[in-house]
Amino acid sequence: MKFKQLLLAGFLVSTILSAEAADIYSPGGELKLNVDVNAAGQPVYSLIYKGKELVSPSRLGIQADETKFSDGFRIEQVDTVTVDRSWEPVWGEYSTVRDHFREMAVKFVAEDPAREMTVRFRLFDDGLGFRYELPVQKGPNYLTVKDELTEFNFTGNHKLYCIPGDYDTDEYLWSETTFTDLPQALSSYKRHSEAQRTGGTTIQTPMLIKTADGVYVNMHEAALDGYPAMLLDVEPDKFSMKSHLVPDRLGVSAYLQLPFATPWRTLIVSDDARDILASQLVLNLNEPSKIEDTSWIKPMKFMGVWWEMFTGNQKTWAYSDDALAKPGITDYSKLKPNGRHPANTENVKKYIDFASANGIDGVLVEGWNEGWEDWASYRKNRQFLFDKPYPDFDLPYLRDYAKEKGVKLIMHHETAANASDYEKQLDRAFQFMKDNNYDAVKTGYVGAIIPRSEHHTSQWMVDHARHVIERAAEYKIMVDSHEAPRPTGLCRTYPNWLAQESARGGEFESMGGNPPSHTCILPFTRLKGGPMDYTPGLFETRMSYYGEGKDSQAGTTLARQLALYLTMPSPMQMVCDLPENYERFYDAFQFIKDVPVDWADSRYLEAEPNRYITVARRDKNSDDWFVGAITDENARTAEIDLSFLPKNEKFIATIYEDAPDADWKENPQAYRIRNVDVKSGMKLKQKLAPGGGAAIRITKKK
Amino acid sequence: MKFKQLLLAGFLVSTILSAEAADIYSPGGELKLNVDVNAAGQPVYSLIYKGKELVSPSRLGIQADETKFSDGFRIEQVDTVTVDRSWEPVWGEYSTVRDHFREMAVKFVAEDPAREMTVRFRLFDDGLGFRYELPVQKGPNYLTVKDELTEFNFTGNHKLYCIPGDYDTDEYLWSETTFTDLPQALSSYKRHSEAQRTGGTTIQTPMLIKTADGVYVNMHEAALDGYPAMLLDVEPDKFSMKSHLVPDRLGVSAYLQLPFATPWRTLIVSDDARDILASQLVLNLNEPSKIEDTSWIKPMKFMGVWWEMFTGNQKTWAYSDDALAKPGITDYSKLKPNGRHPANTENVKKYIDFASANGIDGVLVEGWNEGWEDWASYRKNRQFLFDKPYPDFDLPYLRDYAKEKGVKLIMHHETAANASDYEKQLDRAFQFMKDNNYDAVKTGYVGAIIPRSEHHTSQWMVDHARHVIERAAEYKIMVDSHEAPRPTGLCRTYPNWLAQESARGGEFESMGGNPPSHTCILPFTRLKGGPMDYTPGLFETRMSYYGEGKDSQAGTTLARQLALYLTMPSPMQMVCDLPENYERFYDAFQFIKDVPVDWADSRYLEAEPNRYITVARRDKNSDDWFVGAITDENARTAEIDLSFLPKNEKFIATIYEDAPDADWKENPQAYRIRNVDVKSGMKLKQKLAPGGGAAIRITKKK
Repeated sequence: MKFKQLLLAGFLVSTILSAEAADIYSPGGELKLNVDVNAAGQPVYSLIYKGKELVSPSRLGIQADETKFSDGFRIEQVDTVTVDRSWEPVWGEYSTVRDHFREMAVKFVAEDPAREMTVRFRLFDDGLGFRYELPVQKGPNYLTVKDELTEFNFTGNHKLYCIPGDYDTDEYLWSETTFTDLPQALSSYKRHSEAQRTGGTTIQTPMLIKTADGVYVNMHEAALDGYPAMLLDVEPDKFSMKSHLVPDRLGVSAYLQLPFATPWRTLIVSDDARDILASQLVLNLNEPSKIEDTSWIKPMKFMGVWWEMFTGNQKTWAYSDDALAKPGITDYSKLKPNGRHPANTENVKKYIDFASANGIDGVLVEGWNEGWEDWASYRKNRQFLFDKPYPDFDLPYLRDYAKEKGVKLIMHHETAANASDYEKQLDRAFQFMKDNNYDAVKTGYVGAIIPRSEHHTSQWMVDHARHVIERAAEYKIMVDSHEAPRPTGLCRTYPNWLAQESARGGEFESMGGNPPSHTCILPFTRLKGGPMDYTPGLFETRMSYYGEGKDSQAGTTLARQLALYLTMPSPMQMVCDLPENYERFYDAFQFIKDVPVDWADSRYLEAEPNRYITVARRDKNSDDWFVGAITDENARTAEIDLSFLPKNEKFIATIYEDAPDADWKENPQAYRIRNVDVKSGMKLKQKLAPGGGAAIRITKKK
Repeated sequence: MKFKQLLLAGFLVSTILSAEAADIYSPGGELKLNVDVNAAGQPVYSLIYKGKELVSPSRLGIQADETKFSDGFRIEQVDTVTVDRSWEPVWGEYSTVRDHFREMAVKFVAEDPAREMTVRFRLFDDGLGFRYELPVQKGPNYLTVKDELTEFNFTGNHKLYCIPGDYDTDEYLWSETTFTDLPQALSSYKRHSEAQRTGGTTIQTPMLIKTADGVYVNMHEAALDGYPAMLLDVEPDKFSMKSHLVPDRLGVSAYLQLPFATPWRTLIVSDDARDILASQLVLNLNEPSKIEDTSWIKPMKFMGVWWEMFTGNQKTWAYSDDALAKPGITDYSKLKPNGRHPANTENVKKYIDFASANGIDGVLVEGWNEGWEDWASYRKNRQFLFDKPYPDFDLPYLRDYAKEKGVKLIMHHETAANASDYEKQLDRAFQFMKDNNYDAVKTGYVGAIIPRSEHHTSQWMVDHARHVIERAAEYKIMVDSHEAPRPTGLCRTYPNWLAQESARGGEFESMGGNPPSHTCILPFTRLKGGPMDYTPGLFETRMSYYGEGKDSQAGTTLARQLALYLTMPSPMQMVCDLPENYERFYDAFQFIKDVPVDWADSRYLEAEPNRYITVARRDKNSDDWFVGAITDENARTAEIDLSFLPKNEKFIATIYEDAPDADWKENPQAYRIRNVDVKSGMKLKQKLAPGGGAAIRITKKK
């Protein structure tokens, strides 16, 4: 299917001193890309959507101490090819993904000093990806990169959905603003204590743009590997953005040996918001799986001993209140237990029993190991041990008990951001897991990074993340990483990377809450990089963080929490609440028991960022369809067009919906469950309460 | 043997507002230590030797961002104890080491804010060690240390033997200067390219002082663990020094959790230079072995495939000249070999054969693994693989061949200073060694450190070194570390740490040479921390570095190289030269075959820093005595008093000496071997050529 064709222009430029522009159209013709060099020999590109300039000429280039891939260039050669292929993900929203693009590789050459650089563009019907390929040079081949020059010059004062630039965290609420209002929007953010926020008007990717014409653009990157994460420096008055590579603390962004190819810079483009959600562009730009035998990778639902620590009675991850205990040095069996430690044998058994009785695959236990007594990791060379259970956590017993009950225990590796010490312990930690029948781990990096030269998203940490995921794959371990560099579709290449946090998750419901709009923007932004461990399933929507007495009202109705299993798809999906809360609403819990986490097909039916999402998905392992619909703080009637159902068959829809008087703030736990006969072609009018949602299971009528 | 006694003063201070001084004498009474607080409540100490002030009142203290352990103090309690015990090292210069000292623990207490600190002093007959002990405080227990206040105020313009302060290297020639001439002496040093030298008049420890009265003082530290190395800031006109802790690149020296005890600051003191060499003070201040079963730790002599790469014909550690090859990514079997790679199967076999035929225990092979093609590690996330042999190094074959020949192969782990990547690979690298019958490794850290926040001797790297040595012990692997933080006697605690480089070694003979005085100062300075892998045994003393055509004349005669096995004792002693050079002087090589590397007893007979050393040692495994004598560039007649021999027995001394016309510069390879009947009480007058030496084996006459 692959072929290569030299454009005529490609031949001509070799004899023409002035640069020759090159352009291509997307397969369907709606997007047009133009690449050129300007008078200074600076490579530029522009992007036209449906005949209108979306990105006006914007610079390309990379600046290293040793060489500048920025100007003095001419286009020497242009190779184009059309590719139309498909692939089958190990898990995901679709059983087959089409990868259809027109590729143009533009080779820029400069003399004095001699340099060359190829920018490879892939123009899909739903957007653009491009990356820099730096081949072996006649000059220096080891680079100290301090700046990437990539610009994204937009043509109007568009709407921006974004969070502040930050080298260390992405756990922010989202702003809906405009280019010119961005400074004001960013000024309102509180700084996270350990985090290194950037100055000025820097924002993070993934982010979303909406033009006055109703064109949506998701901006992100794909296949972030061997390079730092990209933030975006915004010039509000020029409607422009420029790449801002996360530096290490010495001010260097990337140390490179050529040949090297950067991650892809991506723009998902459509005037239909649903296309942004459906787009597989970021995954398509990642390499196929490096794991040959993927039979051990199993999507799952899991419960966790964790929410007790967030929501009350001063329960702790720590076994003792002796803040100065030292893992591996202190004899924990002689420590005074604090009596508020849920990761104990008896309590974990309760979770295993509940999971077993309800078909939940796994139980995560946080706070099971030595080291939680303090949180001073930046001043320590070791915070945690990954093979030393607390005295009250009988690991061999629980291992055997869980096995007997058909439940998988999930390991927790909180590193307190000492990535360096985690690497020291990694092989042994993973071996310890395998020796004890664990095959999934939740990793965490809360705090300031060690090595102290690094940020959460600097190059070294990107390398660290890949190291961990590769090692995990060797041990056949699945990973759900928290506080790691944000996902960029690498889960295609390493399908054992089931989920990441990398955004403000459900845990914040106990710490001020997430407004209903929050989960209406995440699928447009954060989720384009890969699945999120958002932790849906919150049935008790009013809580007190750590029992501090300040009640927090979650930004959700109960029914909406069920819908999140559809709108926030993940192959490692949490069932976040306490067993007793599920027992209180056991009829609603039936939906969580039923809902799959891996899909044959997905149809985005309705979508508007920050406002609403309605999606239908077909189970990968049955003919059942599931629908989820959510809205922001406004009530809404979703229109669910059932034409995705096979014709001429009869179905029953079991609808879990907000009760008529439900409201996220005043009456969040009011829901109804009803059955309706449905068939293809029908349109369901489904009411959603303010901050509410609906979840529907559609099965064939027998 | 241990007892504890509270001094009367200790009781009194609790009722006296002004500070009460405390003092102790060394067991033999020649050293007196006084500890006091001055008017500002600053702790101070002074040291009197034979009635004369050696160190005048000098401040003590530690400065952290969170708390200052510097002033406002009173002495609350003084505990003293006399200890006289002995211990048996796994290997070393003595089969038994006496540890005899008077200890005084002075507890300093301050209010507003409340702080306390104990300084523990141990006064030996041959010097002083003291350390800070920071117990759990009422205030902050996590510290960010930027300065240690320890002063050493001397009382005259003493002679100093020292090298420049440097965070990354200690491979310098030594200056013999004075306090006031120090700035001039330091200005003459060339800066190592990757190294971070300190500004001003900062020097390193270990260093040596000689007063006008002929008192020698070695200054160093013991048990460097969990803390950065200490340099010394010198104020030339005040004859004073102050602790300068190596910072990380963020400017922080130590991140601490209390309780914490610093390394010991040490002063070895005597007016007999021989006592400095004989002192075991630094080892005594280290903890006993943490390794219970030490039966696998075996002192050894070893040859190496390495000197070929230093001395000619452009031979290389690298297999190929393709500088851009990437370990683990490039297919090395398809690379073009450069044909100048000595670490190939056939050549290594030659070394194994020679070692086997001559009773040399091991063969080190450098350049056996993927990664040597470039030296750009600071711009890479991986330079070397530790389990991937080059295509021309048939590891399984050589493993079996060496075993058959009774020779141990020694692994080489050059990390190119990417300590962080070494930690990623460490467990697997050690397992790979054990799987292939290796049980000793030479580690290397050439270049600028990764993590990039660190220096070779900053706290993180000190932690790294301990991590490596502990892991090695778990795998029963012996370690010879190069470019690691300098030794401080930790080889007592981890006796698998057989040797370290940590100074300008024999390899520099090929790069400009080491003057004869160099090995006359190292035993007074560098060797007080532990054995050095100096690489003696150089028989071909004229060479061309890397075949570059510039002949280098080693600062030695051939006979002196034999003497170095005595004057530079190490349990992992190299036999550094090429087999063919030993075959040329095979009668002299007999001494290297005969000389042991582990000792029952040692007697320093003559010594003057930078001038000469004569030492006699008794083999741990026989009744043989061995004598080594070296001189500087001046000819000398050593007087070897044989009264150490058992009386009433007859011995034969086999003397390997400089020929009468020998001279390190003009005639270095002229030597003689003769046998002499000797007995206790005799005094041998042994002539040493300029830059020469003599080596003697004394065996019982049968």
